[in-house]
Amino acid sequence: MAQINENYLKLQAGYLFPEIGRRVREFQDQHPNAKIIRMGIGDVTLPLAPSVINAFHSGVEEMSKKETFKGYGPEQGYDFLRDAIAKSEFADRGTDISADEIFISDGSKCDTGNILEIFGFENTIAVQDPVYPVYVDTSVMAGRTGLMNANGYYNGLVYMPCTAENNFIPQIPNEKVDIIFLCYPNNPTGTTASRQELKKWVDYARQNKSIILFDAAYEAYISEEDVPHSIFEIEGAKEVAIEFRSLSKTAGFTGTRCAYIVIPKNLTAYTSDGKEGSLHSLWLRRHTTKFNGVSYPVQKAAAAIFTPEGKKEVRAMIDYYMNNAKIMRKNLAEIGFKVYGGINAPYVWVNSGKGIKSWDLFDKLLNESNVVGTPGSGFGPSGEGYFRFSSFASKENVEEAMERLRVLKF
Amino acid sequence: MAQINENYLKLQAGYLFPEIGRRVREFQDQHPNAKIIRMGIGDVTLPLAPSVINAFHSGVEEMSKKETFKGYGPEQGYDFLRDAIAKSEFADRGTDISADEIFISDGSKCDTGNILEIFGFENTIAVQDPVYPVYVDTSVMAGRTGLMNANGYYNGLVYMPCTAENNFIPQIPNEKVDIIFLCYPNNPTGTTASRQELKKWVDYARQNKSIILFDAAYEAYISEEDVPHSIFEIEGAKEVAIEFRSLSKTAGFTGTRCAYIVIPKNLTAYTSDGKEGSLHSLWLRRHTTKFNGVSYPVQKAAAAIFTPEGKKEVRAMIDYYMNNAKIMRKNLAEIGFKVYGGINAPYVWVNSGKGIKSWDLFDKLLNESNVVGTPGSGFGPSGEGYFRFSSFASKENVEEAMERLRVLKF
Repeated sequence: MAQINENYLKLQAGYLFPEIGRRVREFQDQHPNAKIIRMGIGDVTLPLAPSVINAFHSGVEEMSKKETFKGYGPEQGYDFLRDAIAKSEFADRGTDISADEIFISDGSKCDTGNILEIFGFENTIAVQDPVYPVYVDTSVMAGRTGLMNANGYYNGLVYMPCTAENNFIPQIPNEKVDIIFLCYPNNPTGTTASRQELKKWVDYARQNKSIILFDAAYEAYISEEDVPHSIFEIEGAKEVAIEFRSLSKTAGFTGTRCAYIVIPKNLTAYTSDGKEGSLHSLWLRRHTTKFNGVSYPVQKAAAAIFTPEGKKEVRAMIDYYMNNAKIMRKNLAEIGFKVYGGINAPYVWVNSGKGIKSWDLFDKLLNESNVVGTPGSGFGPSGEGYFRFSSFASKENVEEAMERLRVLKF
Repeated sequence: MAQINENYLKLQAGYLFPEIGRRVREFQDQHPNAKIIRMGIGDVTLPLAPSVINAFHSGVEEMSKKETFKGYGPEQGYDFLRDAIAKSEFADRGTDISADEIFISDGSKCDTGNILEIFGFENTIAVQDPVYPVYVDTSVMAGRTGLMNANGYYNGLVYMPCTAENNFIPQIPNEKVDIIFLCYPNNPTGTTASRQELKKWVDYARQNKSIILFDAAYEAYISEEDVPHSIFEIEGAKEVAIEFRSLSKTAGFTGTRCAYIVIPKNLTAYTSDGKEGSLHSLWLRRHTTKFNGVSYPVQKAAAAIFTPEGKKEVRAMIDYYMNNAKIMRKNLAEIGFKVYGGINAPYVWVNSGKGIKSWDLFDKLLNESNVVGTPGSGFGPSGEGYFRFSSFASKENVEEAMERLRVLKF
């Protein structure tokens, strides 16, 4: 008798974004004429940059001729892309990461979900709260948690609250933790961690032989000088950290699919009897056995982002979105919300300050303003009362949404 | 202290194809002028079909304009592709599979590796021997086996020998098995299973509430009338089977990346206390939580395969490769090899009939003929003495390789 993985039965309700989609569809069905403005899911709206499109076409063209056709590529990605990333994203910023420490993939959602496979079941996992749901849900599915308790926390996971009270920076937990998910610039709060704050975590990990899984999907949105773009800018991080990067938000690749993961070659974890094991080797084995590389034309398109022209174009896209964030910050503050984030990240995180629950605010905004945001509680119990607005809409829509919110009665 | 997944330490040596690559590189370095003919790894060589290229370009073009740009798509794939597959690959052949039973992915290697995630650890897994190494290696990595024993078998897995003696069709094992990997047309042996033989397995699975994981990556190569293209052509299979399909070999997508998996909606496995659980629902949850869909232009390109023009073009590619297989079958038989497969699959499976071990034959062919094949023992102990030739080379190379082999002394 074939048995299912019963850990899936521990999962509560649907994944956040499908649930939002369901409510919006239901509303739209009942109000077919409502012009809904979507500022919920963090999906980009600007088309791919011209350099990217040109490279994409030329990659496709290569696939049309016997002489330039590409079959299976290296699972880890083509050297032209790994080299471009190592140079542009790390060497040029003074960070020492070599091309063979970079593994190209089809998305950070996959990478952050799959990474747990190379770690043993005995590890205690810590997550920020609120948090990108994938870290938690994939931990549950992989059997690394118990059931969800009455407070909305899965037993066995260590939650680190991040609220306005602690400036959205988690405290070092009381119990020892082995694997720590950190995301900065943070999704969903849009806030950042300083060099000094990240240093505290790197030091903790070095002392405790823990591993930091650092999600830097939003690093391209950093506008302030002294905010670190990579965990590897922190001294000692190469001994204790894995970093996730994505082109989804950096260059509008949400529908094109390309990301990467950085695993330093000297990064180690341990066997149960204390022997060192190379995480780079383990991931290489996983990646080559369970993945067959990213589509060649997509990798060509991705490499164009790191050309001088591509960088300029991509920067203009980010500036556009960040101007939206600025408009949102200003308006939402004037409306009376407490406003966080939106300076080094495309997300503005607000609290009504009126004790309204997140899903109630979601329903109110959807029903009365036809504006869709993301309920903070969907990211974890400490997100209750908060609400996330994404700046990926068009400027016109952002402005109209703000007008609509201004007339709302609370 | 972060602990590694120690199951990885059970893995023996490298994955087969990297090892072949290593030996070939070493030989080429030592003999830079040798003209090596590669008939080892099953990678296609013909460029993408014209209709596919056109659709691919037009997909890229859509990504360049705000009005047609695509961000996140449905994780399960766009309806236009799922509908095209349901119609062309199933309905048109009289097989009842609906579009929402089809999940688009970036490759069968990922799918066959990841599928175990939705099954519990208690299941006994059976594999054919020889076998596509991914089924075994991913089972090991996921902790579903013990150590490898002296005979080259992982404890805990049930191996079903497939040799010339049983016509490459496995016997029903003596012990009860819960999950059964079957691959037909078979990689590596190139052989097929009849409707009657598959029926035997479906009946077994129905009686024992087992699940068949059916890999049909090579179904497009079937040339004989009565060979089933899908496990779902067998009565009752929708109650017990999941099928993997890939565009890699069907349409030369090894470097473009697109595949799919079919999970019938009424397919169930069980909790440990015997309650039914829907495998379709579990996979939907896994797919939406851990995957973000295939690149939009790739899906557009893939859909072109199922147009009348695309079908014709793809058929011509397959005919080209299968003509190679015919040349190989004829020559290899004349040389004195025992020859199997190559009629409904792009692989010709041979046995020297002279007691030569697989890797010895590999080295001999590489050194003396500069021809690369795949050692049968790399696919499992029962592959010892066998050798796989792939028909994906150019006709000229196949002919030259055969000439070179004809003068070899054994």
